[in-house]
Amino acid sequence: MQRKLTAVVVLAFWLAISSLATAADPLPSWTEGRAKQSVVDFVQRVTAPGGKDFVPEPERIAVFDNDGTLWAEQPFYFQLVFALDRVKTLAAKHPEWKEKEPFKSALAGDLKGVLAGGEHGLLELVMATHAGMTTEEFEQVVKDWLVTAKHPRFNRPYTECVYQPMLELLEYLRANGFKTWIVSGGGIEFMRPWTERVYGIPPEQVVGSSIKTKFELRDGKPVLMRLPEVNFIDDKAGKPVGINQHIGRRPIAAFGNSDGDFQMLEWTTAGSGPRFGMIVHHDDAEREWAYDRKSSIGKLDRGLDEAAKRGWLVVSMKRDWKFIFPFEGN
Amino acid sequence: MQRKLTAVVVLAFWLAISSLATAADPLPSWTEGRAKQSVVDFVQRVTAPGGKDFVPEPERIAVFDNDGTLWAEQPFYFQLVFALDRVKTLAAKHPEWKEKEPFKSALAGDLKGVLAGGEHGLLELVMATHAGMTTEEFEQVVKDWLVTAKHPRFNRPYTECVYQPMLELLEYLRANGFKTWIVSGGGIEFMRPWTERVYGIPPEQVVGSSIKTKFELRDGKPVLMRLPEVNFIDDKAGKPVGINQHIGRRPIAAFGNSDGDFQMLEWTTAGSGPRFGMIVHHDDAEREWAYDRKSSIGKLDRGLDEAAKRGWLVVSMKRDWKFIFPFEGN
Repeated sequence: MQRKLTAVVVLAFWLAISSLATAADPLPSWTEGRAKQSVVDFVQRVTAPGGKDFVPEPERIAVFDNDGTLWAEQPFYFQLVFALDRVKTLAAKHPEWKEKEPFKSALAGDLKGVLAGGEHGLLELVMATHAGMTTEEFEQVVKDWLVTAKHPRFNRPYTECVYQPMLELLEYLRANGFKTWIVSGGGIEFMRPWTERVYGIPPEQVVGSSIKTKFELRDGKPVLMRLPEVNFIDDKAGKPVGINQHIGRRPIAAFGNSDGDFQMLEWTTAGSGPRFGMIVHHDDAEREWAYDRKSSIGKLDRGLDEAAKRGWLVVSMKRDWKFIFPFEGN
Repeated sequence: MQRKLTAVVVLAFWLAISSLATAADPLPSWTEGRAKQSVVDFVQRVTAPGGKDFVPEPERIAVFDNDGTLWAEQPFYFQLVFALDRVKTLAAKHPEWKEKEPFKSALAGDLKGVLAGGEHGLLELVMATHAGMTTEEFEQVVKDWLVTAKHPRFNRPYTECVYQPMLELLEYLRANGFKTWIVSGGGIEFMRPWTERVYGIPPEQVVGSSIKTKFELRDGKPVLMRLPEVNFIDDKAGKPVGINQHIGRRPIAAFGNSDGDFQMLEWTTAGSGPRFGMIVHHDDAEREWAYDRKSSIGKLDRGLDEAAKRGWLVVSMKRDWKFIFPFEGN
């Protein structure tokens, strides 16, 4: 009995020490101020046993947009760069692309020309580069690309162009019993090969846009073939639909950066009990980029207008974050 | 230091005791024999640290069919009973149903008449009873039904007509670091309201068939409306597609009971490394039902033919299970 008591006391002491160590500064890359305090307050409220805002662990669901919220999205969505690189790689097998838009512009590195084709052109580009192979083949293509491709401004792999304060936030939430999810307009299979390594988010907690797949036998081996047909677009009003489809319960916290995240924030914060909505505002032209209402990528207009009224926190990258990227200061 | 050591020793002792207690009989409702031994052997192989078949925890994904694998499916799929009950409840608002099939037969309790309408008739029945309301309203309808509806043979709530040996298996796998998933042809939103309570499987680990939903504002409040349009059929070749969509990695163990699970078993066991495929064979007419090759519900034909060749375990409910339902012996 004495031994058991000793064990319990020592264990309790260890736990107290380690939780104090975490509590000391769970978000070291965030400057002291209202933004950081709001995040910490929310987490403390929903985890305080017996508190009026306590939320049981299984319901601590937090959803994160990816492009512009967890990693950068300028000068172009990284997945678009991937598609253009794929066009170049595949061009030898497609001589007809030399004369056919949007491939002609893509091969010439003329992004303006690509975008001139509008949504239809982009869709054609995606289907030509993302379909026509098995899921396992596509996963390998994405992994190979990530090893060699470098961001044009930072000259680093795209998976290093992630936001250090958000990495800390993900970890902080998980340490407090949250399940963290990505809910992105990006391709679900473009994200899954690296989200576990980079964000600690396993493939089954990634929600994204997708094309259809078909089960078939190839040389007697079962495969899933990727078809050139849209299955689901996980953007804007599609985000709550994707959340319901994959998670099946309403998150209590949502993190975004553009009007593409508006409905996800709206859906999340309309639930009863404690709710948290946060928008990352890109206002740091020096360390990252400054863009919002007029941007064609990551446009944030309605979100800025309505955040205060809806009780959503707007985080200034310039003021609220000490560091933007993990490689800063290295 | 002495205290810390004491703590560690005592803790290790406790852990050893509790793991021995579990190891003593993790599956008490399974009879001793090849079936039980195969399950235990597999779990021990993939969890033995340093063993050649060791599988890291995040990859320990186990998928379970629901109808006929975790709960019964006779004399009719429980969700069909739900739909018929809903028709009766909603009939007052639909006077036209009195003259219109499949509703006319449904109202007359004539299941044969309902089934005469084939797949099209069933689809009409599902849409009329599962769509046209919000996701939250539907969840409540399912919960309310489960409280009152009783299985015609056992005179118990449908959620008690679950297989005790499978409940033990789910728990045993989770205690060994597995994530357990449902992958069912049944409606995803028909299962989610009760799978956590009954199976310990949270809503985000349920994959199933679905209709489309649409985000909209109702009196300024965001809702997801259920539309009368098929989104996804999670059956046969659809199961590997659903698994990929929701889980994003290949399971290492799959459990089914009918040819609707064939491709799920095929997909799961075709992966490299240790794999486990299991088919529950309904061969106990006394305690449950006996049906396989000729059954219109839960037909098992090809699975029986190919199980041995493919290395899948066929479990005999009659011989391998001491108890079928949790209420037996009560």
